[in-house]
Amino acid sequence: MKRPFVFINVAMTADGKIDTISRRGAAISSPRDKERVDRLRADSDAVMVGGQTLLNEDPKLTVKSESLHAERVARGLSPNPMKVCVITSANLPIHSKFLHEGSARVVIFTTNRTSKDKLEALRAGGAEVFVHSGYRVDLAQALGTLKELGVNRLMVEGGATLNFEMLRLGLVDEVQMYMAPMIFGGESAPTLAAGVGVERGEAIPLKLIDAEKWDDGGVLLKYLIERSE
Amino acid sequence: MKRPFVFINVAMTADGKIDTISRRGAAISSPRDKERVDRLRADSDAVMVGGQTLLNEDPKLTVKSESLHAERVARGLSPNPMKVCVITSANLPIHSKFLHEGSARVVIFTTNRTSKDKLEALRAGGAEVFVHSGYRVDLAQALGTLKELGVNRLMVEGGATLNFEMLRLGLVDEVQMYMAPMIFGGESAPTLAAGVGVERGEAIPLKLIDAEKWDDGGVLLKYLIERSE
Repeated sequence: MKRPFVFINVAMTADGKIDTISRRGAAISSPRDKERVDRLRADSDAVMVGGQTLLNEDPKLTVKSESLHAERVARGLSPNPMKVCVITSANLPIHSKFLHEGSARVVIFTTNRTSKDKLEALRAGGAEVFVHSGYRVDLAQALGTLKELGVNRLMVEGGATLNFEMLRLGLVDEVQMYMAPMIFGGESAPTLAAGVGVERGEAIPLKLIDAEKWDDGGVLLKYLIERSE
Repeated sequence: MKRPFVFINVAMTADGKIDTISRRGAAISSPRDKERVDRLRADSDAVMVGGQTLLNEDPKLTVKSESLHAERVARGLSPNPMKVCVITSANLPIHSKFLHEGSARVVIFTTNRTSKDKLEALRAGGAEVFVHSGYRVDLAQALGTLKELGVNRLMVEGGATLNFEMLRLGLVDEVQMYMAPMIFGGESAPTLAAGVGVERGEAIPLKLIDAEKWDDGGVLLKYLIERSE
C-alpha cells in the first residue's frame, strides 16, 4: 500500500524520557528546538498523535509562527497542516484544542469502540472520522488513507505507544530527536518508544545521519530507517 | 563526607533502553564501545553495580584486555579494579562470577535483610561486606567508605535504579553514554535512569561536554554534573 514519507520527532531527556511520570506534557524542548519543531510542522502535510497523548495533553498541533503560516498560504496550503489522531476509543472532549484550535483539517482514525453518538458529535464538530473494524486502528491502512487524502509528508509526534507501533510495523522512514541535557528518571515515565518492545534479535535498526551539538546543551540526532518492503 | 569522583557509564539504545524487556543483559555496545568500556574500567579504582543487575546478569566486571591488565600492574595496581555491589538483600549465588572471576577485591554494601549465614558465607568467599542499618543501603555513606578504602575514581555501571538514586542524591560527577543505532521499545524495559523519577521542576540538569558521531552509527555523549554541595 502506498503511504506518505513518515518521520517521528521527539524531544527527550538524556535518559530517553519524553515526559515525567506525571504525564502532563513536561517541557523538554529548548527555545531553539521549539522553532525547529514549528518548521517541521510547517513543512509537513499532516501531524499525527496517539490517543493517550491527545487525552493527557490535548495538544494544539498548530504552527506557531505567523511567518510560517504566511509561507504555507503563499504555497497554496492551509495555514496549518492536517491534524491526525489515532485513538482506539475516541473519548476526547468535544471542545478540545485538538479539534478546534487553529484552522486545520482534522482526521481521526478510531475503532468500533467509539460510540455512534460520539462519532456523530465528532463529525458534527468538523472532524473526518475513519472507523476501523479491528480491535485497534490498522496503522498501515490509516497511512494509506492519509496518502489518498493528499498527505505526502507525515510528522508523528508520539506518544510512546504510537511511536513504537509505527516503528515495529516498519512504517517510519526517519527519526529526529532533540536530546535535552536533563534527566527525569522514573520507571513508568514514557520513553521515545514503549509498547510491548522487542527482543535483541528483533531490535529496530537505525542509520545515524547526524549528531549535532547545540549551544543550549542539547543534541539533535537524525536517523534514517531503510524500508524493508 | 568525602567521596570518590563518580561517573556513570551506559550503553543505551536510541530510545534510552539499557536492556530489553527480558532483562538478560542484551548486547548494545559495538566492538569499539567495548574497548572504550574496558579502558574506563582499567582507569577506575572500582566498578559498581546494583543488586538487580548483579542478580539478573552476574557480570564479571573485569578488565578484558591483557595489555590493560599489564598497564595496571606496572602502575602498582591489581590487574582489575575493585568490584562493588550495592544490594539490599545480598542473595547472590556464592559461586557467582561477580565474586570469583578475575583477581579483584570485592566489596558488598547491604542491609540487615541479608541473613547472618549469608553474610558469613560471603565473607568466607573473600568479599568485604558492609551492613547498613536502614531499609536500604545509604549510598552517600557507601561512597564515604569506598573513599576510605582508597577509591578515588568510581565507575557506576547501572542498573537503572542505582543510576537514578545516585543521580537523585547528587552523587554523580559525570555521565557517559554510548547510544547505539537501534530501538528496543518496551514499556517495562529498563532505561538509563528509572527509580521513582522526579517532576519537571526537579529534573537533574546535565552539562553537555561532547557528542561524538562514530562510524559504527553510535553516538558517544559526555555530560558533567556540577556538585551542589
